Amino acid sequence: MKSKTPNTRTPECEVDSMFIDRWSPRAFLPEPLPDYQVKILFEAARWAPSCFNEQPWLFVYATEPDKREKFLSALVPKNQRWAARCPLLIFVMARKNFEQGGRANRHAPFDTGAAWMSLALQARKLGLYAHAMAGFSQDKAYEILGVSRDDYHIMAAIAVGRKDESADDLPEDILAMEAPNTRKSWSEVATDRFPINEH
Amino acid sequence: MKSKTPNTRTPECEVDSMFIDRWSPRAFLPEPLPDYQVKILFEAARWAPSCFNEQPWLFVYATEPDKREKFLSALVPKNQRWAARCPLLIFVMARKNFEQGGRANRHAPFDTGAAWMSLALQARKLGLYAHAMAGFSQDKAYEILGVSRDDYHIMAAIAVGRKDESADDLPEDILAMEAPNTRKSWSEVATDRFPINEH
Repeated sequence: MKSKTPNTRTPECEVDSMFIDRWSPRAFLPEPLPDYQVKILFEAARWAPSCFNEQPWLFVYATEPDKREKFLSALVPKNQRWAARCPLLIFVMARKNFEQGGRANRHAPFDTGAAWMSLALQARKLGLYAHAMAGFSQDKAYEILGVSRDDYHIMAAIAVGRKDESADDLPEDILAMEAPNTRKSWSEVATDRFPINEH
Repeated sequence: MKSKTPNTRTPECEVDSMFIDRWSPRAFLPEPLPDYQVKILFEAARWAPSCFNEQPWLFVYATEPDKREKFLSALVPKNQRWAARCPLLIFVMARKNFEQGGRANRHAPFDTGAAWMSLALQARKLGLYAHAMAGFSQDKAYEILGVSRDDYHIMAAIAVGRKDESADDLPEDILAMEAPNTRKSWSEVATDRFPINEH
């Protein structure tokens, strides 16, 4: 089937296609994912690097309808409308303190971001897409997950599934957003000119 | 040449090999990287996802000897000893506030971690390794980079290069650490049992 949402991103150089190919759609097919695919997604995340190999991430996921319903209830309504179809919903958390010694781990959100990226790239290798969301109620998520603000940052909600190439079931306002977004230019995010403030 | 530091990691399931294959060595070859490789590394990072597509990351890099010398001076001595050979040194920063509106972006470190992971995986696709470090002086790094603590978190220093399979030039105490590290088990980092505190 011809996709209604072709990827028109243009890289500035010969980067691996997986980075261009990954984006965050909202049109998903409701079919359940096989268990082995769910397993592989977190396996990819597990091998991410972290400060002192602390592995500060924790992924809590929902595949069963009643559990997904609970996760959905924490999302903002706009995200609920499309994420309700996704067969796999996830909250990813970062432990605030080092397990050894208990002092604050200021690298935990950064390291957990690396684990999330691994999951997102592995999703594409399985023919899936992963869409991370900041649009959820922190209060509600802490309550549903049953963790303390003293122990964890809740970094993001993530919806995973197969993309619905027809996008037929998307409401019109959401369909209008259904395309890979673009990026700042290379030279805006990388430079060898420093000190920065002198330029 | 047979590597002195073979990768003996064992995945728990059929994850893409790139995640197992990526690790953080300290034995690097001093040869400069071609410009196109430097360009591709940040190109990969550039396409990472971020909250509101903010792209809060900024990569400042050094390839010229005098610039690398400056970057090195911010690292802790233990990292200086091996990173001095790397042809590419980087500091990755996360912008603290949204460009539009200026309010605090609490997702910036997480999103910047995703960009870092893209760079690390792209490095392997080029036959390179990227090693991120928390071991540096924040004060010194802010001074060298010429940015304000009000504007940026400095998340990590990163050394990139080709791996020296012989590891002949590594001091013995550093050579003792030169192997891919392992991870917690899958079930320690992913669960569908919640609320967490009830288990």
